[in-house]
Amino acid sequence: MESTKTQTTTKAVAYGNNHSFTSLGPLEIERRVPGAKDVAIEVLYCGVCHSDLHQASNDWGNTVYPCVPGDEIVGRVTVVGADVTKFAPGETVAVGTMVDSCRQCEACRQGLEQYCEGPKGATQTYNGPFKPDGTNTFGGYSEKIVVDEHFVFKIPDGLDVRRVAPLLCAGLTTYSPLRHWQIGPGQKVGVIGLGGLGHMGVKLAVALGADVTVFSRSAAKEADAKRFGAADFVLWNDPEALAALESSYDFLLDTIPYEHDLNPFVRLLRRDGTLTVVGLLLPFSDATNNMEVAFHRRNLSGSLVGGVPETEELLKFCAENDILPEVEMISIEDVNDAHQRMKNGEVRYRYVIDVAATMPAEA
Amino acid sequence: MESTKTQTTTKAVAYGNNHSFTSLGPLEIERRVPGAKDVAIEVLYCGVCHSDLHQASNDWGNTVYPCVPGDEIVGRVTVVGADVTKFAPGETVAVGTMVDSCRQCEACRQGLEQYCEGPKGATQTYNGPFKPDGTNTFGGYSEKIVVDEHFVFKIPDGLDVRRVAPLLCAGLTTYSPLRHWQIGPGQKVGVIGLGGLGHMGVKLAVALGADVTVFSRSAAKEADAKRFGAADFVLWNDPEALAALESSYDFLLDTIPYEHDLNPFVRLLRRDGTLTVVGLLLPFSDATNNMEVAFHRRNLSGSLVGGVPETEELLKFCAENDILPEVEMISIEDVNDAHQRMKNGEVRYRYVIDVAATMPAEA
Repeated sequence: MESTKTQTTTKAVAYGNNHSFTSLGPLEIERRVPGAKDVAIEVLYCGVCHSDLHQASNDWGNTVYPCVPGDEIVGRVTVVGADVTKFAPGETVAVGTMVDSCRQCEACRQGLEQYCEGPKGATQTYNGPFKPDGTNTFGGYSEKIVVDEHFVFKIPDGLDVRRVAPLLCAGLTTYSPLRHWQIGPGQKVGVIGLGGLGHMGVKLAVALGADVTVFSRSAAKEADAKRFGAADFVLWNDPEALAALESSYDFLLDTIPYEHDLNPFVRLLRRDGTLTVVGLLLPFSDATNNMEVAFHRRNLSGSLVGGVPETEELLKFCAENDILPEVEMISIEDVNDAHQRMKNGEVRYRYVIDVAATMPAEA
Repeated sequence: MESTKTQTTTKAVAYGNNHSFTSLGPLEIERRVPGAKDVAIEVLYCGVCHSDLHQASNDWGNTVYPCVPGDEIVGRVTVVGADVTKFAPGETVAVGTMVDSCRQCEACRQGLEQYCEGPKGATQTYNGPFKPDGTNTFGGYSEKIVVDEHFVFKIPDGLDVRRVAPLLCAGLTTYSPLRHWQIGPGQKVGVIGLGGLGHMGVKLAVALGADVTVFSRSAAKEADAKRFGAADFVLWNDPEALAALESSYDFLLDTIPYEHDLNPFVRLLRRDGTLTVVGLLLPFSDATNNMEVAFHRRNLSGSLVGGVPETEELLKFCAENDILPEVEMISIEDVNDAHQRMKNGEVRYRYVIDVAATMPAEA
């Protein structure tokens, strides 16, 4: 009996516990006893993602409280179910933004679980299924997590495990569109916004062979942009600088995480070029002018993280190309402050919580 | 001397002549003496395009007055220049929305003259180059036109020449995106708006083998939609009808010619589906919600008429598949009234001016 209780009760920190929606507080949550295909993981590190801010603040109108954020997880396997084949206790593994999907729809069969067309859509690592069904899930701001092995990832040798976590969301969210739109040598790519997503987008696009320009509103980031491999740096709030670059980009990856106007960026695309927005899951500030879109048959799109095969591919690609995010390690008590600094654009470039070392003793 | 004068002076009707911007009035214009590569054409028929309304009203802010509209032209060759190889006097030919382009840029070399990247862009049949350079051009609401043979098209045998003109803009504007996005059997296509462009989009998409739904705001058009080959008909101002069709279309062709909200249509697209807007060259009424775009990696695009090879292909395709627009023949004095009826959505489905028979004697 005692053994079962230990398995299911887990310390976490949550928003919306005791009616506090603006700061994290301790919460005791239940984790299921691992089933035959489950992997129980002790959380070591968890990235702090912009989604965590949005979800905490209910910006998307779908937050289920209490909300335990965290979808960039690195941990150590403690228990594996009887039918688990890929993992063994003691291994260091990663978990990203999803912990389940229907596994049967066309998207799932193609390894695009993020676009699961099943009755509930994909189940997010925290805040539950895309189509709410009354259940909730709790993320990596917690001591332990239990995940079906299909959504658990091996970490290739050679990657610094303290820096791996942000690959699972920030890395994958930028890698997936770069691969889908077949970015490679000979292409001019613009990465708009140089934050958690943007800095991964630059490193990945450069490693894929593209000629990369960073579009930022902060002149102070130019040196970093170049250090990450960008060939050019442009202040996107300078209309003259943008006008000079009209119709010159094959692909633009827009990582700006707040409401903004797409129109100035649309004009940067060549004929048949694509602008993909990954930073904002809300309406833009302004209506698009189709005159600019149609006159060069430009494409505007959006993209959502990546599926299981692409996650494995990304981790391998990063190990082979020595790509890791720039991270600042913080303790779990620092997260509220970190969220505020992210809102202020101060993070360089991703906070990672040292969960195992700093989880409060009392939950 | 007399002969030269006959060549260069041509009767036309124009907006903005004698300061009248709201109704057409007679105007005498100059046509160049045909050069070595030019074809002189007596205009027989000219389609009345929504662009004519926009340009007459200066909706795009670029109208050069006086403005002689008309970019869907069928006529008879009267004179050919010394180096013209494709045409001979007496032939019935067609001219579309362009009369020149740089012929050297990548777009022109690919036969995509409509996206000409030369210093002036393509030269429109009326209202001059895309990038104004002080010159103007005059369209098919005139007795004669002189055009470089590169932009003149043979009309395949078997097509009723009285109905061909609208293929040159309405037909091509819908055919080009259907071909670019590789529409064919097995695909679900929605055509939004059933007017001049929309009815051609339906006929062409059906002939290409797609399963076509018409989205209209007018229940009275259902019978026509089915007659043109559509399998389904949906009132797009019925939110429940749209909700039932969420995520079910591979391709949507939006032909609505006035400001509108894209968001309700975005939701109809399957993952990786594309919505291409061809009816509006202005901003939409509402900002796009990227939540809907990113969650299914949907694509929003726009497209502009078609190039020279695609025009030839379209005319051949229409002859082979017995496709022609639904037209109502009008006299040139009826054009002001026709413009008003188009604004009211009363046209079924394209007016064609019987130019040769009805041009006023006094210009």
